[in-house]
Amino acid sequence: MSKPLSIGVAGLGTVGAGVLKLLAQNGDIVAARAGRPVTVGAVSARTRGRDRGVTLDGLRWHDDPVALAADPGVDVVVELIGGSGGPARALVEAAIAAGKPVVTANKALLAVHGAAIAEMAEGRGVPLAFEAAVAGGIPAIKGLREGLAANRLMRVAGILNGTCNYILTTMREQGREFGDVLAEAQALGYAEADPSFDIDGVDAAHKLAILAALAFGRPVDFDAVHVEGIREITAMDIAFAGELGYRIKLLGIAGRDEAGISARVHPCMVPVAAPIARVDGVFNAVVAEGDFVGRVMLEGRGAGAGPTASAVVADLIDIARGRHTPVWGGALDVAPAVPMERHRGAYYLRLMVLDRPGVIADVTGILRDGAISLESMLQRGRAPGEAVPVVLTTHDCEEAAMRAALDRIAALDAVLEKPALIRIEAL
Amino acid sequence: MSKPLSIGVAGLGTVGAGVLKLLAQNGDIVAARAGRPVTVGAVSARTRGRDRGVTLDGLRWHDDPVALAADPGVDVVVELIGGSGGPARALVEAAIAAGKPVVTANKALLAVHGAAIAEMAEGRGVPLAFEAAVAGGIPAIKGLREGLAANRLMRVAGILNGTCNYILTTMREQGREFGDVLAEAQALGYAEADPSFDIDGVDAAHKLAILAALAFGRPVDFDAVHVEGIREITAMDIAFAGELGYRIKLLGIAGRDEAGISARVHPCMVPVAAPIARVDGVFNAVVAEGDFVGRVMLEGRGAGAGPTASAVVADLIDIARGRHTPVWGGALDVAPAVPMERHRGAYYLRLMVLDRPGVIADVTGILRDGAISLESMLQRGRAPGEAVPVVLTTHDCEEAAMRAALDRIAALDAVLEKPALIRIEAL
Repeated sequence: MSKPLSIGVAGLGTVGAGVLKLLAQNGDIVAARAGRPVTVGAVSARTRGRDRGVTLDGLRWHDDPVALAADPGVDVVVELIGGSGGPARALVEAAIAAGKPVVTANKALLAVHGAAIAEMAEGRGVPLAFEAAVAGGIPAIKGLREGLAANRLMRVAGILNGTCNYILTTMREQGREFGDVLAEAQALGYAEADPSFDIDGVDAAHKLAILAALAFGRPVDFDAVHVEGIREITAMDIAFAGELGYRIKLLGIAGRDEAGISARVHPCMVPVAAPIARVDGVFNAVVAEGDFVGRVMLEGRGAGAGPTASAVVADLIDIARGRHTPVWGGALDVAPAVPMERHRGAYYLRLMVLDRPGVIADVTGILRDGAISLESMLQRGRAPGEAVPVVLTTHDCEEAAMRAALDRIAALDAVLEKPALIRIEAL
Repeated sequence: MSKPLSIGVAGLGTVGAGVLKLLAQNGDIVAARAGRPVTVGAVSARTRGRDRGVTLDGLRWHDDPVALAADPGVDVVVELIGGSGGPARALVEAAIAAGKPVVTANKALLAVHGAAIAEMAEGRGVPLAFEAAVAGGIPAIKGLREGLAANRLMRVAGILNGTCNYILTTMREQGREFGDVLAEAQALGYAEADPSFDIDGVDAAHKLAILAALAFGRPVDFDAVHVEGIREITAMDIAFAGELGYRIKLLGIAGRDEAGISARVHPCMVPVAAPIARVDGVFNAVVAEGDFVGRVMLEGRGAGAGPTASAVVADLIDIARGRHTPVWGGALDVAPAVPMERHRGAYYLRLMVLDRPGVIADVTGILRDGAISLESMLQRGRAPGEAVPVVLTTHDCEEAAMRAALDRIAALDAVLEKPALIRIEAL
């Protein structure tokens, strides 16, 4: 057996401690699969004394994470600090400059600066691995970039944020409102004190930007991702979705057609029979559609110490074995980004309208003027003079036309609240 | 870009033609991801003139597949002949002896002779790749052997035969009997004229033997797999399963515990809420449970020209890139095989009994004598003096005890047919 691969771990939060625990507990398995032992040589974290449930005895400590890159006893740098800039970026760039392979779980860093970092890594022939950055323990990066490498992928989509999926699942199962379930998720530790990163779709968008780059073989382009979160989803819309045969999921969807590449994160109504509709709670899933393979779905835990450590160490085993894949899989696509205004699809609209004659005629007239074709209309109950929900679903139309129509609908006197719009996706 | 990788393809059936078609259609993608073009240098098949929908112009033709191994213009041998011995085995061994990497979709060959072939390949340092041998287009081999490499896997299970899954799904959806649906599947080309290989569970067992070897890091051991097929599944049992909250699936399940490694293929009742219960029709799925990653499920098309070609070419890209993984992932486990008699689990029994007083008492008495604890009993309808179904489900017990009890139950005068036994699995 060859000489050990010595790693330096920056960041000893849940995931960093998980990596140390995994290497201690499964050292025999890792050594057999890597062809040599994988050992921890040095670590870096903000606080030295904290009990992390793992021993740091015998490990060199660096207060400055960037010092790991210069540590002659460190062969590979594992970046688990997080954040799109600051020390994480400095460390990754220092490691690449020093010719040391990097393993990172940092989706924000890759989404925002991944194009430049990848160029630097490829220019110097240094491996940059990031299986843990997307969908936790699910081998999604490897699956797409190597497993489906022979395919022209038309679409990659996924449930990429466990916090949102947990909240939406709980809202549906218990018929509760968003704010209520969010507060509970925060109390249980499933959601952050400042949850905006998750619930506004930013975290999912970071991951989708990475998946889109791999799927279509071009550098990551976070700015091209259209992002909406789940704050405006109501128990009423979840109930209507059920009645119509749908479930509401926060999906990231990237597609490639003649016009170019689209990438968007927003709540979707997906048919109850679609495999992704049944991925509930904290589970994540990634669906890819290729021209030869058809539809493949990968499902598992998208976060947490164990799953994320599993992905980090899988990358370390690849590096130990000398298995190398270009960052974006082998770039080939120079297609333009398609803006959200050009998206075509079906829509669910839910309006709160004053129950009086003529309102539906006004609404459907506006849709007709926009050349938007209705698929169904639903008005439950009567309450003359009061607010009642009206649900409309459309056939495929263009986003720009739908937005223009929606502005006109929202301006009607009889429409009492901001209309709810949820896109319907066939997956 | 480096010089092309030239392949020799043996076997030009559906899959072989699919590989040629993929390389023609996605040549740009494959070259970008492989770092060099992958070209077909030579082919071999039984019949020369047949129209396969792909051009063979300019390709060297060998009547004897083994000649591909000696062709100096062939860098990698792709074996798509099939069958556990004969020309397939001769070709694979000749290629390895000549130091040429092998890509094969041949599960029978790997299950039966894989231990010897892998030893030969590893001894000579020749890559032996077989992503297409298990679950078609799903990157299950890569997922298990590389993606989950950091985990101690406790279990790997799957729906590994699309023909059986299609038959069971259709029986459930249409309330029809096995023989009827099989005949239709044969007419539609979903089942072979001689379907025994599929419906008796042999094909699934070949694939499970390979998955178990990868999951537990030891050479493949087909003889240790317990195999039962789906011939005895009735519409009545499928209906009772639904009533009890289960679906009937033909699963391959391999597990590792203190006693050793178990591997078995048989019809199972799985809870309707289990993700694998919803994998219907010709789709396959592989579920793995690891100590850090938790449960991961991979789902997709398990057969057909496109998905299988996708997997074959993924292996070729790995070889072109020099990405190499030991055949069994890095062997480490020397655990004994646990025989089926030692299996512990819950059981569903369905008896056809003469409707007369005392029969249930006789049956339950036998179960009590065997220390088998009942979970539920169901006797629908009354028909004094005639045959009625009685359904029993048990708590966990040992297979040997259940079989002994079942022999005694079957021998009762009032039990009119061979009892149906289906194992209940929590997945």
